[in-house]
Amino acid sequence: MNHFRNEDALVKGIARHFLPHRSHRLRLGIGDDAALWKPTPGFVSILTSDWFLEGSHFFRTKHPPDSVGWKCLARAASDIAAMGGTPGCFLLNLALPPDTTGKWLKSFLGGLHRAARSLDCVLAGGDTSRSRRILINITVIGEVQEGQEVLRAGARPGDVLCVSGRLGEAEQGLRLLRETRGRVNQKNEAIGKHLYPQPRVALGRWLAQRDLASAMIDLSDGLSSDLGRLCRASGVGAWIDAGKLPLPRGTDRLESAQQLALHGGDDYELLFTVSRRKVASLPATFRKLELTQIGKITKGRTMRIVGKDGAEEPLRAAGWDPFR
Amino acid sequence: MNHFRNEDALVKGIARHFLPHRSHRLRLGIGDDAALWKPTPGFVSILTSDWFLEGSHFFRTKHPPDSVGWKCLARAASDIAAMGGTPGCFLLNLALPPDTTGKWLKSFLGGLHRAARSLDCVLAGGDTSRSRRILINITVIGEVQEGQEVLRAGARPGDVLCVSGRLGEAEQGLRLLRETRGRVNQKNEAIGKHLYPQPRVALGRWLAQRDLASAMIDLSDGLSSDLGRLCRASGVGAWIDAGKLPLPRGTDRLESAQQLALHGGDDYELLFTVSRRKVASLPATFRKLELTQIGKITKGRTMRIVGKDGAEEPLRAAGWDPFR
Repeated sequence: MNHFRNEDALVKGIARHFLPHRSHRLRLGIGDDAALWKPTPGFVSILTSDWFLEGSHFFRTKHPPDSVGWKCLARAASDIAAMGGTPGCFLLNLALPPDTTGKWLKSFLGGLHRAARSLDCVLAGGDTSRSRRILINITVIGEVQEGQEVLRAGARPGDVLCVSGRLGEAEQGLRLLRETRGRVNQKNEAIGKHLYPQPRVALGRWLAQRDLASAMIDLSDGLSSDLGRLCRASGVGAWIDAGKLPLPRGTDRLESAQQLALHGGDDYELLFTVSRRKVASLPATFRKLELTQIGKITKGRTMRIVGKDGAEEPLRAAGWDPFR
Repeated sequence: MNHFRNEDALVKGIARHFLPHRSHRLRLGIGDDAALWKPTPGFVSILTSDWFLEGSHFFRTKHPPDSVGWKCLARAASDIAAMGGTPGCFLLNLALPPDTTGKWLKSFLGGLHRAARSLDCVLAGGDTSRSRRILINITVIGEVQEGQEVLRAGARPGDVLCVSGRLGEAEQGLRLLRETRGRVNQKNEAIGKHLYPQPRVALGRWLAQRDLASAMIDLSDGLSSDLGRLCRASGVGAWIDAGKLPLPRGTDRLESAQQLALHGGDDYELLFTVSRRKVASLPATFRKLELTQIGKITKGRTMRIVGKDGAEEPLRAAGWDPFR
C-alpha cells in the first residue's frame, strides 16, 4: 500500500484491505455517512470503546505494527467476552502521522485483519485523521441473548472466585520487551501474550449460556485493580489464596511472580465468580485453557490475600492506571 | 468538579454528570466492562465514529470547552441524520492532559450534556486516558426502520439537488473566530453556527419516512467535497446553479460568499436529491429551516457550476481534508 493523497484514498485503501471479510448482518460498511448493522432479534447489543495510544499503550520502537493491529481489537473484544457476548463488528478510528501511512499502516492492518477474522468481527466503519502520534480508538459492537448477559455486579458472599489462564505473563512479556534491544523474540510465550493476547470469547459465552458465572470482568489492568472493580460493583469483598494463583512461568523468584500475577496488566483473562452450588459443574480446563479457583467472595467489603504461612494481608489495587 | 486521583474516579465523575438523562433502552451504562443497549425490533443500527482532536478540529485557546462538548456529539449525530435515522446513545472517548480534568472538563461535559439532551442521545460508555493534547472520539449508535435508510448511492440523473439551511456560514464563523482576540461574540450568527452546529435529525428522518430523498449526505467538509462523494457513490455527476446557492449573510463580496458556500466545512446541513416526480412534495421550508433546490444530478460523472452569466465551469472538490 502506498502513501495516500487524501482522506478518501486512505479510507478506500483500508476498506480494500478488509474486503474478503464480510457478514450478512453488515448491511452497509465503509463508504457512506455511517454503517448499517442488523442486530439479531432477541439479543441486546454490547457496546465498548478502547483507546490504544502511542506512548501510553504501545511504543512505535518496541511494538511491531502487526501486534498493534491485533491487540487494539483483541482488547476491545475482551470487554465483549466479559459480558458473555460475541463480537459482531467494529469501528476503526485512526489518526496517523504522515510517515506511518505506508509500511507501518500496511503491517498494522495485517494484524488487525487477522484479529478480525479470528474473532469473526467485521470492519464496519470509523474515522481517519492526521496526528503527530499514532492514535487509535476502537469501538466493538457485540451482542448477547437477552437475559444471558453477565455483569460485574452479580457476585455474592460465598461464591468461588475463578480465573482463566495464567496471570502476570503479559506484564512479564512487557518487561522482557523493554529490556530487549532490537528485534524481539515473538516466540517467547510471555512476549507473545503481551503482543498478541487472546480474548476469551468462547469461554465467556460458554459460562453465560450455562448460567455458571454470577459475575465476570476481564483482566485488563491487573487482578488487584479489576477484582476491586468487581467487588465494588457487587458490594462485596474477596479473599484470595496466594498459593492457588496461576503464576507466570519462567520467573525465578516466587515473590516477584506473585506480584506479576496480582498487579500485572494486559492479560485479558476472565475473572469470574461461581456460586458454591454450581462450582462442581466447572471443569478444570475449557478447551485446554486452565480454569483456576483462586479464592472466594466475602461479605466484608475488603480484599484480602492469604499466604502459604496462613498470614492474611489486605490486598491493595495496584494495577495499571493511566492517571496514576 | 475537582481533579481526579485515578481513572475510576474520573469515569465516575463523568457518569454522575449525565445521571438524570436516561433511556429505558440503555439496559446498562457506565460502570461495567461494556454497555448494553436494546435495539428496536424491525430497525437497523446505524454506527458512526468521529475524531475531534485539539489542534486539528479545535483549538483550546479559541474554542470554549462548552462548544467542544456540544460539537463533538453534534457532528457525529449529523452522520446519523444523513442516513435518515435517529441517534440513540453514544460512547465518549476522552484522553486528557492533567491540567484539563478540572474546569475545562466540567465546561466540556456541560456542552456535551446539553447536546445529548437536545438530541435525546444518552451516554452509554467509552474510555478515558491521559494525553498531552485533548483527544476526543465519539461513537454514536442510532437506528432507522429497516428499508427507510437513505444512502449516498441512490441519486439518479435528473434528480433535483437540494440543501437545508445556509452554506458557508460555519466557515465564515471560523474565520471570525481566528481573527478575534480574547472572548468571541457567541451571539454572532456565523460564530454560533461554527461553535454550536445543529444536526438536522428531524429533517433527515422526515425525508426518509416520506421516501422523498433518493440520496443524502451531511455537509461536514464542504459542498464541493461532499457532493463529490455523493456523486461517486451514485455513479453520477452534478450541475449546480451558482445563483441558487443559499449564501452566508454578512459577506460583502459575492465571490467570497460563493467560495464559502462551495468549499466551507462544518455546516452540518443535509445535501439530498429528490426525483423530479416527487420534488413538488418538497416544501420550501421544514420547521422554519430553508430547503433550497440548487441544481440537478447529471449522467456525465463530472461536477459543473453555472454562473449568472450562463458560463459553465468544472467544480473541483476543495473542502476540508486532514491529509491535504
